[in-house]
Amino acid sequence: MINKNNIKKTELGPSAMLNPVPVIMLSCRGTGKENSRGNIITLAWTGTVNSEPPMISVSVRKSRFSHQLITESGEFVVNLVDRKLLKACDFCGVKSGRETDKFTECKLTPYYCAELKYAPAILESPVSLLCKVKQQIELGSHDMFIAEIVSVKADSELIDSKGKLMMNKAGLAAYSHGEYYALSGPIGFFGFSVARPEVLKRRLRKK
Amino acid sequence: MINKNNIKKTELGPSAMLNPVPVIMLSCRGTGKENSRGNIITLAWTGTVNSEPPMISVSVRKSRFSHQLITESGEFVVNLVDRKLLKACDFCGVKSGRETDKFTECKLTPYYCAELKYAPAILESPVSLLCKVKQQIELGSHDMFIAEIVSVKADSELIDSKGKLMMNKAGLAAYSHGEYYALSGPIGFFGFSVARPEVLKRRLRKK
Repeated sequence: MINKNNIKKTELGPSAMLNPVPVIMLSCRGTGKENSRGNIITLAWTGTVNSEPPMISVSVRKSRFSHQLITESGEFVVNLVDRKLLKACDFCGVKSGRETDKFTECKLTPYYCAELKYAPAILESPVSLLCKVKQQIELGSHDMFIAEIVSVKADSELIDSKGKLMMNKAGLAAYSHGEYYALSGPIGFFGFSVARPEVLKRRLRKK
Repeated sequence: MINKNNIKKTELGPSAMLNPVPVIMLSCRGTGKENSRGNIITLAWTGTVNSEPPMISVSVRKSRFSHQLITESGEFVVNLVDRKLLKACDFCGVKSGRETDKFTECKLTPYYCAELKYAPAILESPVSLLCKVKQQIELGSHDMFIAEIVSVKADSELIDSKGKLMMNKAGLAAYSHGEYYALSGPIGFFGFSVARPEVLKRRLRKK
């Protein structure tokens, strides 16, 4: 029970305080020969924005090398990040692809899928979302790219015998207020607050 | 070390597979007398989209009651969700505000701030982001509201002696593939992959 009398609020001013947020490695490539090697940028300013069709937004500063590559090609891949990828993920967030070949430096493997013409996915990521840009909106410090997810590739070892993705086995990381976190739990499922006792029992027994 | 030869991929088709994502309780209110009581909708389709000025996007189906209230007022509050709020959070995701007074039903307290004219914040949320809509974009199943964060209110007990928000003490929940998770860790901080040994030591000692 929350004691309302004890709740005092402090004003923090305007800031981007949504937490936790996803942390992803966006892979992309330019269309010309001079940008023919793939690049990776780490982003937390991303979110699902639509269900049908599935769409995602990613926000990138204009000054970033990847901004140019995404604008050129109209494509990118959102690669989810597990614990094994976390150091590479952090590295790709602090180094620029103008000077660094991040795939080589991080010992990561680009792979190409039929659905996209330019952008490679990262083989070592457990789940990759192949995306085609639909809109680009200037917001200030960042441009937001709104893209349709045209395909998802997942590690086959994460697929159960019924063909269902076991996302809870992927060991994904989250980002909150400057720090990376693992997920612990689960502590509930969508609809648990109104679930019938037998459903609660079945879902909890599965864990 | 990842053995690349063992990585096989399964095609899952297009779907909204970004994970983990935030889970938030959006509070809002209409401008007319008939919608004068506050409403709450639970959302996972949200993300930070800009840093300067701080901006957030939330995607809401047109059919939802809150869609109407946000469109009317041009305002909403994004309330972060901790473990204590999780059951109410889930409940607000499965019930409609057309039939249910969610503040009353969940024993939550609306509070009003000078920065917004209509939308209340949720007193029991550890951190609330007060938002003013700047753009509304139709994407298909959902409309995306892009809003500027005009103020952030946090529980005073989460503020340290230097005035810094201790977000890691808030006990926030994340959402991944239909399940709610607590955060476990932290397992790194932004820049840890290139941090000098003395910085690593200092940051790790703090935990």
